[in-house]
Amino acid sequence: MAKTVAAFGEVMMRLQVPGYDLLSQASTLNYSFSGSGVNVVSALTRYGHTGYLVSRLPANPVGDAAVTYLLKLGIAPTYLMKGGNYVGMYFLENGFGVRPSRVTYSNRQESSFNTAPEGTYDFDSIAKPMDAIHFCGITLAMNDGVRKQMKELAQAVKQQGGLVVFDCNYRPSLWGEGGYEKAKPHYEDMLELADIVMMNEKDAMFTLGMTTTQESRQAQLEELIPEVARRFDISVVAGTHRSINGDNTHSLKGFMYKKHTFTYANPLSFSVYDRIGAGDAFTSGIIHGELEGFDTEQTVAFASAAGMLAHTVVGDTPMSSERDIFRAMSESARDVER
Amino acid sequence: MAKTVAAFGEVMMRLQVPGYDLLSQASTLNYSFSGSGVNVVSALTRYGHTGYLVSRLPANPVGDAAVTYLLKLGIAPTYLMKGGNYVGMYFLENGFGVRPSRVTYSNRQESSFNTAPEGTYDFDSIAKPMDAIHFCGITLAMNDGVRKQMKELAQAVKQQGGLVVFDCNYRPSLWGEGGYEKAKPHYEDMLELADIVMMNEKDAMFTLGMTTTQESRQAQLEELIPEVARRFDISVVAGTHRSINGDNTHSLKGFMYKKHTFTYANPLSFSVYDRIGAGDAFTSGIIHGELEGFDTEQTVAFASAAGMLAHTVVGDTPMSSERDIFRAMSESARDVER
Amino acid sequence: MAKTVAAFGEVMMRLQVPGYDLLSQASTLNYSFSGSGVNVVSALTRYGHTGYLVSRLPANPVGDAAVTYLLKLGIAPTYLMKGGNYVGMYFLENGFGVRPSRVTYSNRQESSFNTAPEGTYDFDSIAKPMDAIHFCGITLAMNDGVRKQMKELAQAVKQQGGLVVFDCNYRPSLWGEGGYEKAKPHYEDMLELADIVMMNEKDAMFTLGMTTTQESRQAQLEELIPEVARRFDISVVAGTHRSINGDNTHSLKGFMYKKHTFTYANPLSFSVYDRIGAGDAFTSGIIHGELEGFDTEQTVAFASAAGMLAHTVVGDTPMSSERDIFRAMSESARDVER
Amino acid sequence: MAKTVAAFGEVMMRLQVPGYDLLSQASTLNYSFSGSGVNVVSALTRYGHTGYLVSRLPANPVGDAAVTYLLKLGIAPTYLMKGGNYVGMYFLENGFGVRPSRVTYSNRQESSFNTAPEGTYDFDSIAKPMDAIHFCGITLAMNDGVRKQMKELAQAVKQQGGLVVFDCNYRPSLWGEGGYEKAKPHYEDMLELADIVMMNEKDAMFTLGMTTTQESRQAQLEELIPEVARRFDISVVAGTHRSINGDNTHSLKGFMYKKHTFTYANPLSFSVYDRIGAGDAFTSGIIHGELEGFDTEQTVAFASAAGMLAHTVVGDTPMSSERDIFRAMSESARDVER
Amino acid sequence: MAKTVAAFGEVMMRLQVPGYDLLSQASTLNYSFSGSGVNVVSALTRYGHTGYLVSRLPANPVGDAAVTYLLKLGIAPTYLMKGGNYVGMYFLENGFGVRPSRVTYSNRQESSFNTAPEGTYDFDSIAKPMDAIHFCGITLAMNDGVRKQMKELAQAVKQQGGLVVFDCNYRPSLWGEGGYEKAKPHYEDMLELADIVMMNEKDAMFTLGMTTTQESRQAQLEELIPEVARRFDISVVAGTHRSINGDNTHSLKGFMYKKHTFTYANPLSFSVYDRIGAGDAFTSGIIHGELEGFDTEQTVAFASAAGMLAHTVVGDTPMSSERDIFRAMSESARDVER
Amino acid sequence: MAKTVAAFGEVMMRLQVPGYDLLSQASTLNYSFSGSGVNVVSALTRYGHTGYLVSRLPANPVGDAAVTYLLKLGIAPTYLMKGGNYVGMYFLENGFGVRPSRVTYSNRQESSFNTAPEGTYDFDSIAKPMDAIHFCGITLAMNDGVRKQMKELAQAVKQQGGLVVFDCNYRPSLWGEGGYEKAKPHYEDMLELADIVMMNEKDAMFTLGMTTTQESRQAQLEELIPEVARRFDISVVAGTHRSINGDNTHSLKGFMYKKHTFTYANPLSFSVYDRIGAGDAFTSGIIHGELEGFDTEQTVAFASAAGMLAHTVVGDTPMSSERDIFRAMSESARDVER
Repeated sequence: MAKTVAAFGEVMMRLQVPGYDLLSQASTLNYSFSGSGVNVVSALTRYGHTGYLVSRLPANPVGDAAVTYLLKLGIAPTYLMKGGNYVGMYFLENGFGVRPSRVTYSNRQESSFNTAPEGTYDFDSIAKPMDAIHFCGITLAMNDGVRKQMKELAQAVKQQGGLVVFDCNYRPSLWGEGGYEKAKPHYEDMLELADIVMMNEKDAMFTLGMTTTQESRQAQLEELIPEVARRFDISVVAGTHRSINGDNTHSLKGFMYKKHTFTYANPLSFSVYDRIGAGDAFTSGIIHGELEGFDTEQTVAFASAAGMLAHTVVGDTPMSSERDIFRAMSESARDVER
Repeated sequence: MAKTVAAFGEVMMRLQVPGYDLLSQASTLNYSFSGSGVNVVSALTRYGHTGYLVSRLPANPVGDAAVTYLLKLGIAPTYLMKGGNYVGMYFLENGFGVRPSRVTYSNRQESSFNTAPEGTYDFDSIAKPMDAIHFCGITLAMNDGVRKQMKELAQAVKQQGGLVVFDCNYRPSLWGEGGYEKAKPHYEDMLELADIVMMNEKDAMFTLGMTTTQESRQAQLEELIPEVARRFDISVVAGTHRSINGDNTHSLKGFMYKKHTFTYANPLSFSVYDRIGAGDAFTSGIIHGELEGFDTEQTVAFASAAGMLAHTVVGDTPMSSERDIFRAMSESARDVER
Repeated sequence: MAKTVAAFGEVMMRLQVPGYDLLSQASTLNYSFSGSGVNVVSALTRYGHTGYLVSRLPANPVGDAAVTYLLKLGIAPTYLMKGGNYVGMYFLENGFGVRPSRVTYSNRQESSFNTAPEGTYDFDSIAKPMDAIHFCGITLAMNDGVRKQMKELAQAVKQQGGLVVFDCNYRPSLWGEGGYEKAKPHYEDMLELADIVMMNEKDAMFTLGMTTTQESRQAQLEELIPEVARRFDISVVAGTHRSINGDNTHSLKGFMYKKHTFTYANPLSFSVYDRIGAGDAFTSGIIHGELEGFDTEQTVAFASAAGMLAHTVVGDTPMSSERDIFRAMSESARDVER
Repeated sequence: MAKTVAAFGEVMMRLQVPGYDLLSQASTLNYSFSGSGVNVVSALTRYGHTGYLVSRLPANPVGDAAVTYLLKLGIAPTYLMKGGNYVGMYFLENGFGVRPSRVTYSNRQESSFNTAPEGTYDFDSIAKPMDAIHFCGITLAMNDGVRKQMKELAQAVKQQGGLVVFDCNYRPSLWGEGGYEKAKPHYEDMLELADIVMMNEKDAMFTLGMTTTQESRQAQLEELIPEVARRFDISVVAGTHRSINGDNTHSLKGFMYKKHTFTYANPLSFSVYDRIGAGDAFTSGIIHGELEGFDTEQTVAFASAAGMLAHTVVGDTPMSSERDIFRAMSESARDVER
Repeated sequence: MAKTVAAFGEVMMRLQVPGYDLLSQASTLNYSFSGSGVNVVSALTRYGHTGYLVSRLPANPVGDAAVTYLLKLGIAPTYLMKGGNYVGMYFLENGFGVRPSRVTYSNRQESSFNTAPEGTYDFDSIAKPMDAIHFCGITLAMNDGVRKQMKELAQAVKQQGGLVVFDCNYRPSLWGEGGYEKAKPHYEDMLELADIVMMNEKDAMFTLGMTTTQESRQAQLEELIPEVARRFDISVVAGTHRSINGDNTHSLKGFMYKKHTFTYANPLSFSVYDRIGAGDAFTSGIIHGELEGFDTEQTVAFASAAGMLAHTVVGDTPMSSERDIFRAMSESARDVER
Repeated sequence: MAKTVAAFGEVMMRLQVPGYDLLSQASTLNYSFSGSGVNVVSALTRYGHTGYLVSRLPANPVGDAAVTYLLKLGIAPTYLMKGGNYVGMYFLENGFGVRPSRVTYSNRQESSFNTAPEGTYDFDSIAKPMDAIHFCGITLAMNDGVRKQMKELAQAVKQQGGLVVFDCNYRPSLWGEGGYEKAKPHYEDMLELADIVMMNEKDAMFTLGMTTTQESRQAQLEELIPEVARRFDISVVAGTHRSINGDNTHSLKGFMYKKHTFTYANPLSFSVYDRIGAGDAFTSGIIHGELEGFDTEQTVAFASAAGMLAHTVVGDTPMSSERDIFRAMSESARDVER
């Protein structure tokens, strides 16, 4: 049954060099608009839910282009506030084989979202209809104003009985030196408020400062995640382990911890066309499974297949329907559909 | 020695989304014109034969663009009749890795070809110079008018002493529910008229309703094809077995049954750039071998290499010369030619 | 104040040859989705209204692309029904100077919209919230099923107290020979239901069969339009006179007849980038003026400026905001805005 | 009635910078193949004639691309010989307004055409079916080998009773210093052989060294052309006077001298999209009129309209049908055709 | 004789929507790098001088792309310092006819140039070889740090005996409310240091607060500019009066005040392809004339023709050689150069 | 520490069909300018050296575009002489999988470089500042004039104490039949002059006519190269062994012979995007290592990684910085850098 979901987060303009050229070789860029929250909510609208983004954009041609793009992604514009002057941007140069892709950010601290004054959003009325809302650790890295808004909105949704989803998504370059210490209290605040958390053992160790004597990733995971869930009273913790293979394919192994039990998806290996945003597709799958009451096996398999398909699609934002994902769960590589 | 060949069939407009975008992401399409008969005849002109297409196109800018495209493919325009209003179209979205390609058809029942009234074509004069003519099961799926024309033209060419080639090419989506029963009598009519038939064991089982207790594809093939050849008095039956490998390469194993003997080509494995039309390249190789009097081993190896190369070229229509194919038969992956 | 508006009409896929190439010269097409109703409603959403399209699209990749495009245009998807198999298409080749542009249609009679069975739309619930609804003579030319739906929906909106807008838009090629006679009763039905009608003296003479001894366009207009308004009890009749100048600029003179009085806009002359859909921009301006309670001078000036700006924008669908149009009403050609 | 026509001439590869960039700004080129003879013959095939090009191209991918392009233009490949190594090329940078377009040639003396050895072409068998053949002063500027072939072929066609058409087309940069003296004897040879000649008063003065005391172009024309026609026994002399207007439009006034009488077309003024090859369109119109037996007024009007339309089409080669040209003769600038 | 010139200023990234699409319609952008100083110096290198830019760019892929672009423009990289994080950007949407072009800036206060700390540049060693250096009022609008650097560098060049060029170029949007008062003391400082000043009567009235009772632009100019020149001891004051004509062509009238005398260029009218940066082309012409010792008439005619040609070339940066400009001074619109 | 380096060689225009189309399928080309010397010097400027090219280009738009491109590649224009008429060109069609890439040359014997008369270059002043200079066997294949210039310049640099680098790079198609015999004396002359030589065992056997009874490539190498080094008194001989794997990846094993010892790099395997010019990247790495005084292990590892990365970048010319290459030496395939 269709639910009402939202995300709180920044809209970024992605400026991508076409093909495999470097920025100093090319003369054109492809642009689109995305963001962790954009990606998760847009994916959820493709599964049939009604999706909102709570954000702020400038009243100028760049802001208009962002709104138009979000409409195209199926996002309702109700909570897109107008104000400020800038949209955060990043440049993407595609890697090839042994040459990695590169992302270069423009100044996002001055963006309309990151400079939104108090009172920009009416959190109570936004929270009222929400069955679930998504937050992301990237937003937490921005500044005090945004952190305050983020926590207030999470609080408001929680009070109304909506699910609070938090994706840890720690980005070292955003927090700078000594970042883990700066980040820790804010992460703890969000974990206190969250019902569903996207994280793995690295977040527990680095951001929360937990320790383990285990050596394998899985053993570390299985020791630390239950502890986190207990400490912060989180119903669902989910995430993936990614590895990059010698032939440039990626492998993804999804997991989900719920009711004291770990469930693992079958590991998936696949060629990658556009890696950015694939984690958000996984998140959207976990949220969808929880909203729809899938059993745990189905949820983590659905989320993993959603993540896998997102690697095969152009752009940050997942484009698969629920039907596409179910089909991918049951099939192997196939010939043309005609 | 150059021969005169023709095909009877529809010209379709292919509208392809560039790169790996979906139709709902992109804003441009690449277009070209093709069709099973177009592909086979164009390939044969590249081997040095004179090639015609017997078809009907509208006298409007879309029809003119189709004619121009066929000219570019080396096809003589003599038997391209003018009339009707529409060209059949299909949209192609390229898959990537685990995400399959998708084909979406426009309405082709109303196309100039499929609405050609009786008397559109002068079959006797068309048949007169032909050394061989190609028909395809896709055309057989269209409607009674087209089926009647197809059989009349096959009859006329057979009477003049030309070779009749029939590619079974059963497409379930075109025949709809209960399709095999509807299709069977028409397939039997064409098999009665044909000298060279492209088919494999599945056609025998599903379309002709034959049964076998064998379990492997090859054993089924070797039981059923000789039976078909005998029953319909067919000199050559040829086809391929395709498999899709874990690393997204395809493997193709060509076979040919002639004078009570099966000949198999060495299986070929290769990366795929554009899969559509590759079967027609294989067919063109079988026809060329038969017209030129190649021995069976050479014919099936040539057809397989033609099929393989067609997977590496943009568009439905094969672009390789006879020399390109002979080189591919004798060589492995190589460095730049300079 | 924001109102709720809708249009009933077909969504067409526009396939445009880039630049000034002919279809037989090029190899790529730009595509978008439009339609008279799409254009009018999308323009109205840019002026701040909530806009719906009442239509039907196939549940396949082409239909999905159409829905995505309408979302991007700001149109709410609530009344876009799913069903049928095809989207109507047209090819556009841009003219240059003395060489006119050419439009070639694909078969639209088989489109999802034109084959929608009875019961596809729930007219009463659609009509309930509507302050205004737009219909177009192009739809009237399609077939009996569509005509019936069109009149039922107009009736339903009228009963709920919404404004019915009808744009005569007679297209000779769609009605065929003897078209005026076939069209007349249907036009009369729609005129009986309409509050605002887009037409000029030619519609009165050719479609309604009225006669006049006047010779100039303006005299004919001023004799016939009041008669039409009286006979069908129409509050507003509006339209334009277009002329094409020697230097390839176009001139447009908008008029509006309301409360027994003609009001004319100042004639506008301008260079043309994309002429298609500009009439719909004019219509959107008239509707906006009436919904907002502009005085007659302002309404017809606003509509004319909206029409003029639509000639300078890529695509069928107007892209100007209310502010852009007001600015164009008050200014002449200007330097870069920076 | 369809006639059989040919041209003798080089095929050039045109490498055009897209839009209005300079070669040192851009990174892509559009390419096509053309040539004076290509343009004239291709235009004639659009009017319904069968057209050949007598030329020589290398047996490599560039030569193959040229042949494919000529096929697309409707030219029969029968007399396209294979041999040599290179195709002549030129780069085109589009001017804008006061900035003129620029053409830069690659080395064409080494092209397959310009290095064709004696015996490359079988002139007698080529000449046999020809109703008319076209030659151009550009070819005459190449080298002794080509000049000899040109004159032999003209002789052969004349003997068979075909019309010999010669377009003077003197290009100063190809003949170098003292060019008029070098060129004169060769021009005289061709004029002796020609039935239809494209030239104007400047050719008479500069290439043939004739003198006049008249000052206006028209008076010079009317004094010199009859003298040329008498001296070389030419049935038809035709040409144009071009002027470039202040608003960047061009004006063209076509003339034709036949049976001791000058006939002038109405001067045409128009915007220019692609100026190159427009003279060849005019020539094709004169040849068509003569082959079809149009009266003189109709021929020169048809040729002028053909020339005008060629300025509005991308590429060197005219793309208009006979019907397009007749329509342009009877109409002024018009709205979209739909 | 080749001189050594420099400019001090920011490098901006220009992100331009191709064709006439809006940013909310398109999906690709063309990018380049420019700036008032970049444009002037690059133009001067095309006239044969050695040119430097004194600026600061980040050590990341965007900064690298900027440096590469400046190299391509002929600018020596010696004084391009590395540091900071961002490059200022602006988006450009091309207008068409009555619809004006739009420029939207990203946040440039945080750019590498605008955040360069004291000591970034070694002004004395930079100043030493310079025959002339260019500054611009846009830079003056940035912040105190940049203003200080600008004045120090001007001082250093003046002391070494180099010419100081200052282009007033007041941009209201950069100074904000009450901008003229804020700007005045800084403009006065720069005028004190300058030898050549680009300005017109509006700068005198608005920025310097001078008054006049004259009404025509020319009379105001002729009253105020001599006063400015005297007061600040400036040898050359030059500028243009631009008007936009009804047919979208622009007219430009250049003037130059030197040794108590006004010299005017013939007014030029022309079609405009890319208006941005054309003022810098005019400036480059004035500097070139002064460096080369042209007489006043020649200098102002050369500068005007340079400005005119810059309107016909893609991008902000002039691309004409000295020879192109001399040719444009002596000729009217011409046919293809071949 | 930054050194001063140069190369002597031709600048070629590369005209590449985009994607995987054949030249007879496409209509656009991407162009760039390169050459063995261009590639080596440009790579060295990315490592921080100052780089020159000694060559000759025409004073026309094609020559201007070449100069602009070389500037963009970081090459100083001081020794680019102006003269002659043509730039050598080659067409590149990308292969896919089993279909090899194809290179087709235009006539380069007539290029500005290959027709440079004696006295074009002032070798003594060019040689003076050079720490190293690069020559290539491709240039040696051109003609006597160029060979003479090449040897004179090598002599001049050697006398000034600069390093002479010679890359054997024997191209059979350039020398024609009996090429090895023709080439041998010229290769011997260059080897006498060279300090660093790029070659492997095949050059020793085929070009120098040496023999060996060894069978493996490595054993042949280790027998022949020391002999060559001794005979011609060469300090460093380096090169690679390339193999193409079944999955279309390439493997590269770099070697370096110095002070009587062979050093081998770890073999590298990688996917290939653009193979052309990768050998020049390896060469640039060897030169850089020698100029910077790297130890042998580091030099050959650096050169190999430079070669590997060049296969992943668009165009002939390497684009990696020293830092990129060091990172590639220490890392395996990685996720996005952000």
